[in-house]
Amino acid sequence: MKWLGLAVAALLVTTPASSEIIVATGDLGLVVERASGSLLLVDQSERGAIARIGGLGDLSHASLVYSPDQRYAYVFGRDGGLTKVDIVKKEIEKRILQAGNSIGGAISDDGRLVAVSNYEPGGVRIFDATSLELVLDIPTGSKTIGLVDAPGRRFVFTLWDAGETWIADLSGKDPVVSKIKDMGQNPYDALITGDGRLYITGLFGEDGLTALDLWEPDPKPIRVLPEYGRGQQDLPVYKMPHLEGWARAGREFVLPAVGHHEVLWIDGESLAETGRTPTHGQPVFAMARPDGRQVWVNFAHPLNDTIQVLDTVTKEVVHEFKPGPAVLHMEFSPRGNEVWVSVRDAGKVMIYDTHTFEKTGEIDAESPSGIFFTARAHKLGL
Amino acid sequence: MKWLGLAVAALLVTTPASSEIIVATGDLGLVVERASGSLLLVDQSERGAIARIGGLGDLSHASLVYSPDQRYAYVFGRDGGLTKVDIVKKEIEKRILQAGNSIGGAISDDGRLVAVSNYEPGGVRIFDATSLELVLDIPTGSKTIGLVDAPGRRFVFTLWDAGETWIADLSGKDPVVSKIKDMGQNPYDALITGDGRLYITGLFGEDGLTALDLWEPDPKPIRVLPEYGRGQQDLPVYKMPHLEGWARAGREFVLPAVGHHEVLWIDGESLAETGRTPTHGQPVFAMARPDGRQVWVNFAHPLNDTIQVLDTVTKEVVHEFKPGPAVLHMEFSPRGNEVWVSVRDAGKVMIYDTHTFEKTGEIDAESPSGIFFTARAHKLGL
Repeated sequence: MKWLGLAVAALLVTTPASSEIIVATGDLGLVVERASGSLLLVDQSERGAIARIGGLGDLSHASLVYSPDQRYAYVFGRDGGLTKVDIVKKEIEKRILQAGNSIGGAISDDGRLVAVSNYEPGGVRIFDATSLELVLDIPTGSKTIGLVDAPGRRFVFTLWDAGETWIADLSGKDPVVSKIKDMGQNPYDALITGDGRLYITGLFGEDGLTALDLWEPDPKPIRVLPEYGRGQQDLPVYKMPHLEGWARAGREFVLPAVGHHEVLWIDGESLAETGRTPTHGQPVFAMARPDGRQVWVNFAHPLNDTIQVLDTVTKEVVHEFKPGPAVLHMEFSPRGNEVWVSVRDAGKVMIYDTHTFEKTGEIDAESPSGIFFTARAHKLGL
Repeated sequence: MKWLGLAVAALLVTTPASSEIIVATGDLGLVVERASGSLLLVDQSERGAIARIGGLGDLSHASLVYSPDQRYAYVFGRDGGLTKVDIVKKEIEKRILQAGNSIGGAISDDGRLVAVSNYEPGGVRIFDATSLELVLDIPTGSKTIGLVDAPGRRFVFTLWDAGETWIADLSGKDPVVSKIKDMGQNPYDALITGDGRLYITGLFGEDGLTALDLWEPDPKPIRVLPEYGRGQQDLPVYKMPHLEGWARAGREFVLPAVGHHEVLWIDGESLAETGRTPTHGQPVFAMARPDGRQVWVNFAHPLNDTIQVLDTVTKEVVHEFKPGPAVLHMEFSPRGNEVWVSVRDAGKVMIYDTHTFEKTGEIDAESPSGIFFTARAHKLGL
């Protein structure tokens, strides 16, 4: 081996001053600390915390999205707060109270627009990602859920009361809103597949789910598992499962069953059921490792101290362990070698190797819930 | 709307000094300038160039990968050079000449190991990603091609002369190398699917391709399109197509045909042919937009001034245009709203909206070829 000392030609900029603080943001993340209304900034490679950012209001059920440069997080709080956090400067850049009660948000595929889904007043509000100025207000007269981004500067969301899905297209000069009726009774959550093609809503008021093929010029509701759902439940539903947790594993989806101790497997093309796997408890999240070979499942209270890992080829449980009390969320490293787990009542985020299942680290956190790595900036529908 | 001025509690760090230069790396990229042996650092959001970094040696056929934090690029030059570039400081951090003639590289899923595939001497060398110290030398006695990373700290590569694929597993204390024979005559390139499951080699010495299912405990060669390939060519092969350009669109793959003016469609499960689309010329890259709805195709000399865009539902050409002389490479923004195109003999990188096909920008570059956005850091097999 031969080492070469080569001259560097930096033609367009001069060498930065030594006082510069270098922040590469590709392996950072934010952990929601719901009890204290704060975010813990973490470094995946170092398996450690870098900073705590407070003053975010009510962070129960909070979620967030990232700007394309992975510098800013947009945090959607339950109290209607929309907070733009600069993870390089490690401070809040701007915070507005945009509604009384909100339930998630999304960022457009070009990174220029941030949308928030609101219960009170019901509707979607869309903001300029730089200034947080209101760009468009779409009142729906209904609690609004399941807001996601779709390719082509679109946002898709669903009306709990009216059972409609609306598609807001902001690609042209004037916004265009399309409305799809008959999505079913009381849709409570929704997801979009990673390719932005299928939008699927879970129903609270009737059995089954409803899908839309967004590649169709005029999408029509498609019933999925019409005989399965909460109507048949033989157990109390402690917590409705998160549809964002739907996993795509190879050509199948994995779905946390509602009110049952099992997960369901569904063919990605026909949307027909292909199998069921009995689980430890009522699943909350069923998350696929990025390569789709494993699905990690956590459970509702009172069985929420446990994680089960399923092999997607055999559909069998291949590993089970108890990270600690109140396992609330899991986030995989972008290429899937590790998983980070929020264990709320232990006050810890635990880190595991997904191949050996060994614990590789832990981080103190105040009642941690959602974990969001910056790689989400580059994915559709997250 | 109500604006709140909130106090920020930065508990673990102090506020950075105002002299700080802030660099968030999520929307950056590098353009290979092959004639001058330099890299152009670009900003996707600004649609502009930030810096030029020179001194990288022979960059014909060069490729690169990124560290998980998106701070470092590892550049694989044809001259055997392995260069670690700090895109935050905008300078070369280290450069070694690790072989006489190399042909691509990969980074392990944990970001700790960088592997390089060599013609001369034939084999793979694996380096510590931080120090570039040699960790493992795997001589193969053959020109070595098609090197990719696979989940579980593995590298997969193929021997041109011996027609074998080797899997190096570096997850345990000692490395384990498995060898799969009978991959076919003179494999010239390979790819791994985005889920890390299928490894597919193109053959120069016989018709067809060979696949491996890496989820099998003992993968066996699977013949793909055994009656199709260069053996049947009715046109001179100006340039063997890049298999890295294989596109996954929904459940199908799109493959640039060898020596024909067409692309082939293959079922992602059965690997059987599902269709052919006639094209303007011999395809070089057939790249799927991240949502899989479009495939963009460029062509070999002398028809390399043109791009065709295919719709993956109809398999038909929906758009054709001429960006300029010598279109060498295309790279989509991570969520697919834009595409960047290297037009070598125009000395430009052109930027297009993938929905309207309008040109949204252009950047001067010296004989640009490969374009690599930092979002690649978070993907398997890139």
